[in-house]
Amino acid sequence: MTAETHRIAIIGLGLIGGSLGLALKAARLRGVELVGYDRDSETRTKARRMGAIDREARDVGEAVSGASMVIVATPILAIREVLREAAPHLTEGSVVTDTGSTKAAVLGWARELLPSGVHFVGGHPMAGKETQGIDHAEADLFRERAYCLCPDPDADERAVRAVLGLVHAVGATPLFIDPEEHDQYVAAVSHLPLVLATALFTLVRGSTGWQEMAPLAASGFRDTTRLASGDPEMSHDICITNREALLHWLDRMIGELYRYRRLIAEGGAELFETFARAQLDRDAFLSRKVVGREQPQVELPDFKDALVSLFIGRAVSERMRKLTELPEKPAETGGRPSREDRTTRLARLFRERLERDLQRELDKDQGPAPPRG
Amino acid sequence: MTAETHRIAIIGLGLIGGSLGLALKAARLRGVELVGYDRDSETRTKARRMGAIDREARDVGEAVSGASMVIVATPILAIREVLREAAPHLTEGSVVTDTGSTKAAVLGWARELLPSGVHFVGGHPMAGKETQGIDHAEADLFRERAYCLCPDPDADERAVRAVLGLVHAVGATPLFIDPEEHDQYVAAVSHLPLVLATALFTLVRGSTGWQEMAPLAASGFRDTTRLASGDPEMSHDICITNREALLHWLDRMIGELYRYRRLIAEGGAELFETFARAQLDRDAFLSRKVVGREQPQVELPDFKDALVSLFIGRAVSERMRKLTELPEKPAETGGRPSREDRTTRLARLFRERLERDLQRELDKDQGPAPPRG
Repeated sequence: MTAETHRIAIIGLGLIGGSLGLALKAARLRGVELVGYDRDSETRTKARRMGAIDREARDVGEAVSGASMVIVATPILAIREVLREAAPHLTEGSVVTDTGSTKAAVLGWARELLPSGVHFVGGHPMAGKETQGIDHAEADLFRERAYCLCPDPDADERAVRAVLGLVHAVGATPLFIDPEEHDQYVAAVSHLPLVLATALFTLVRGSTGWQEMAPLAASGFRDTTRLASGDPEMSHDICITNREALLHWLDRMIGELYRYRRLIAEGGAELFETFARAQLDRDAFLSRKVVGREQPQVELPDFKDALVSLFIGRAVSERMRKLTELPEKPAETGGRPSREDRTTRLARLFRERLERDLQRELDKDQGPAPPRG
Repeated sequence: MTAETHRIAIIGLGLIGGSLGLALKAARLRGVELVGYDRDSETRTKARRMGAIDREARDVGEAVSGASMVIVATPILAIREVLREAAPHLTEGSVVTDTGSTKAAVLGWARELLPSGVHFVGGHPMAGKETQGIDHAEADLFRERAYCLCPDPDADERAVRAVLGLVHAVGATPLFIDPEEHDQYVAAVSHLPLVLATALFTLVRGSTGWQEMAPLAASGFRDTTRLASGDPEMSHDICITNREALLHWLDRMIGELYRYRRLIAEGGAELFETFARAQLDRDAFLSRKVVGREQPQVELPDFKDALVSLFIGRAVSERMRKLTELPEKPAETGGRPSREDRTTRLARLFRERLERDLQRELDKDQGPAPPRG
């Protein structure tokens, strides 16, 4: 690595890892080298030929050596092994992030396995397709999508800023969120739909009439069961690492189906009203531009700056102010809180937490804090 | 109506009725006039201006007067009222068809309400969108989709042939099916997904964390809940007219969710295998071209011929042979039965039933049949 080049390592070159590589290349960051590793050598070569990475590494250690940033984009349970293999090769001051669909478990592994002086910022881009693998990777996969960030409490704010730069570079909108909260929320909006779609498919597919039914299965069946075509390893890992939250939502779903059972058996006005209400609410949900802020091209060089700053000492407080300052433009979406409002609020909560943590560190240095109250 | 013009009436000019009109116009049938009625006068005018119909009628009676074919494309429960209103105005020998999502109830109403000499052929195009109304109508909605046909046992084969002509003209593939069987199958592949999608949406939307979750709800949530944006009247009517079959499938679905609950709680190899199996099976399902036969342009004039033949006596047996004769081209999809095979088989079953019915009629004319066995 020359003084002018900063290296980013991507471990796992499937749909997400490959798309991150393509998106970073599309952002035309100068002086950034992308090194990629995948346990499948064909995938590595394909990723390089597609331009998703600049160079193939032969193992995790080689990939992360000298890297300013390491992105782990493997199935969730494999993240633990990657962190273990990477640990002895990581550069002091570098930042490690991941793209796993659950966050509490991953943050626990990072805390357990990464050396001090290496910063971990959990990540979860809210993007995907039912098709997997490098063949389906695309540079625009993250554009205008939410990208959850769960920094380790010990992560340097410069490390957080570097991952924020990554999120901006790929066109996504960052969303700071507590890892436990994240796992509860995605259990409802992502993992429960996954289980429902798969259960619907296996139930109908496994019934004796399937050969007769299949020709009648139109777009409604196809869309509702789309998630059943997801990568089975990813689906399995999601269920295992977010089991408690998922079972909670599965139980609530079974309860909701019993409610619909009663509504259909009774068949009164309440059934119609339930459908009518759902239609209205879903239209409102769709019309709300969840992640709508255009990412101006001018923000992209920030990422390179951020990577550079990982290794340059600057006043933490000044950087923190810049990181979390309020946007000047007011929201324009009427009564409902806009995406900006929400990001601002989360940024504020994040800043407050960082400040509390900082204060706690300072208190510790100055002896025990006085008792509260 | 001149001797050269045949009139088709479309009652209900929403997504399906409007799209049928556009598809028929796109088929450029000469000497066919499309008359449309919708209880909403704005919709009527819009349909005419879009070219989905040639002429607006002021009521059901005016629309169906002198029509060779009447297509009822209203929500299911409204079909009964339309048949009642239409009955005194229908032409002897004309054919009535519908587009409702359940068929047993509709065939019962037709039998109860239509005068003898008017033929009923239930229909159900397996096409739709979550957006409703004439504004979303499109000529290609039915192209390469299955179109279920449930002829009334008393329907003249020329009437069946006329509706077959309609199906061909709009680019769909006909699928003869028993109405009870139809209702059982669509309960699984269409109505259960509708209830699941809506229940998932109302459960998550109604939870206290919704405002925090909504920004994380990505394409997986949107696709799995898509059917919750369906027309509430249509959804309600489906549940009411197909209640028994739907409740049966809802109970089975709840059972399947309990199975997944156990798999997730146990978290062994069986969970992974279930996801892996579902992915493989769904890929196989998708790769099977459910309705793939290109409808050659040359078949279109058949529709006009069929409309004409409704009012011309021809030898039933000769027509029946043509209607159900085997396609010459063998299937090309390897071991699995192709769409052609299936249509052929259903056509054969349909022919056998017609022949049985005919034989029974003949037996009746010749006195009681000898006891069997």
